[in-house]
Amino acid sequence: MAEALTAEQVLVAAEDVLRRYGPAKATVVDVARELGVSHGSVYRHFPSKAALRDAVSEHWLARLSDPLEKVVASTAPAPQRIRTWVQQLSAAKRRMALEDPQLFATYHEIASGSRDVVRAHEATLADQLSRIIADGMSRGELASDLTAEQAGQAVFHAVIWFCHPAHAGEWGGPGVEQALDRVCTVVLDGLRPR
Amino acid sequence: MAEALTAEQVLVAAEDVLRRYGPAKATVVDVARELGVSHGSVYRHFPSKAALRDAVSEHWLARLSDPLEKVVASTAPAPQRIRTWVQQLSAAKRRMALEDPQLFATYHEIASGSRDVVRAHEATLADQLSRIIADGMSRGELASDLTAEQAGQAVFHAVIWFCHPAHAGEWGGPGVEQALDRVCTVVLDGLRPR
Repeated sequence: MAEALTAEQVLVAAEDVLRRYGPAKATVVDVARELGVSHGSVYRHFPSKAALRDAVSEHWLARLSDPLEKVVASTAPAPQRIRTWVQQLSAAKRRMALEDPQLFATYHEIASGSRDVVRAHEATLADQLSRIIADGMSRGELASDLTAEQAGQAVFHAVIWFCHPAHAGEWGGPGVEQALDRVCTVVLDGLRPR
Repeated sequence: MAEALTAEQVLVAAEDVLRRYGPAKATVVDVARELGVSHGSVYRHFPSKAALRDAVSEHWLARLSDPLEKVVASTAPAPQRIRTWVQQLSAAKRRMALEDPQLFATYHEIASGSRDVVRAHEATLADQLSRIIADGMSRGELASDLTAEQAGQAVFHAVIWFCHPAHAGEWGGPGVEQALDRVCTVVLDGLRPR
């Protein structure tokens, strides 16, 4: 197996080990044992525990941002796409956080150690919003004194409470969806052409 | 001194002890020692460590929300009052977090243990925004399909990234003030009468 070992296989095994042992205890040796290979084979793909952790974070975060590309690329009116994008991201996070709080906390802890990966993820998300807004502006569906890039960043900031794991403990209360809906209403009213 | 001991004196001593030892290590006995009284005298005011912690949290959070009442009560146009309110709260939090990160983290940790106190504080802040918005609506300076109460809650959610201690680690970067300014622009455009 060692010869055919792919980075993807290492990633899957690493996620499995991290879930079971938690990020503090999991080691590269555990991942190698899980795969039945030497730890040297794992290091060939990921030269350090930090590199492996970054790859796991990236993999996890891409599972959240990749499906949103479909929303960005859809032909629906831009205001509706923004609302769908925000609802979808927030719902995915809440589902994970409420269904398996421990796994969610584990991923949050792993990602917290990969600041550059998280920053890149956040930039990707804000950029998705900016692209919807740029498209909406060019179609006359949206308008602002801000540029599309600035407006995308602003909308991303405005919905952070509904998406950022730091607030997961507050998502269990009633009315979260309505609260998000109201933020969307104010924000989308703020981007309406006059 | 024990006879004249006020709740306020206990609070001041408790804050001092918490700063020095941290919330995990500080005990009611430490507070009593600081005051030169028996721990029974402290318990007369605060029947448990949790009650003392809640009081310290409340005292700290009131120091943040009390000065904002002036902004709410000012005669400036409502959109300007909202912007000032948001800037003032965010600036106060950032100043504390950047000037004395350890003390800020200590307060955050204390407050995290006092969830009801934090919830009441957040309700107070959202209510301040709602009152500005209600006033602005009655003066024809603001409008929305939402009620003033819903809109206040929405604006509060929209600026959480700039005020919530969970994001303090990200406030050191460049452009935080501009980013807040842009969120205010979108939100205030969303509350403009049409």
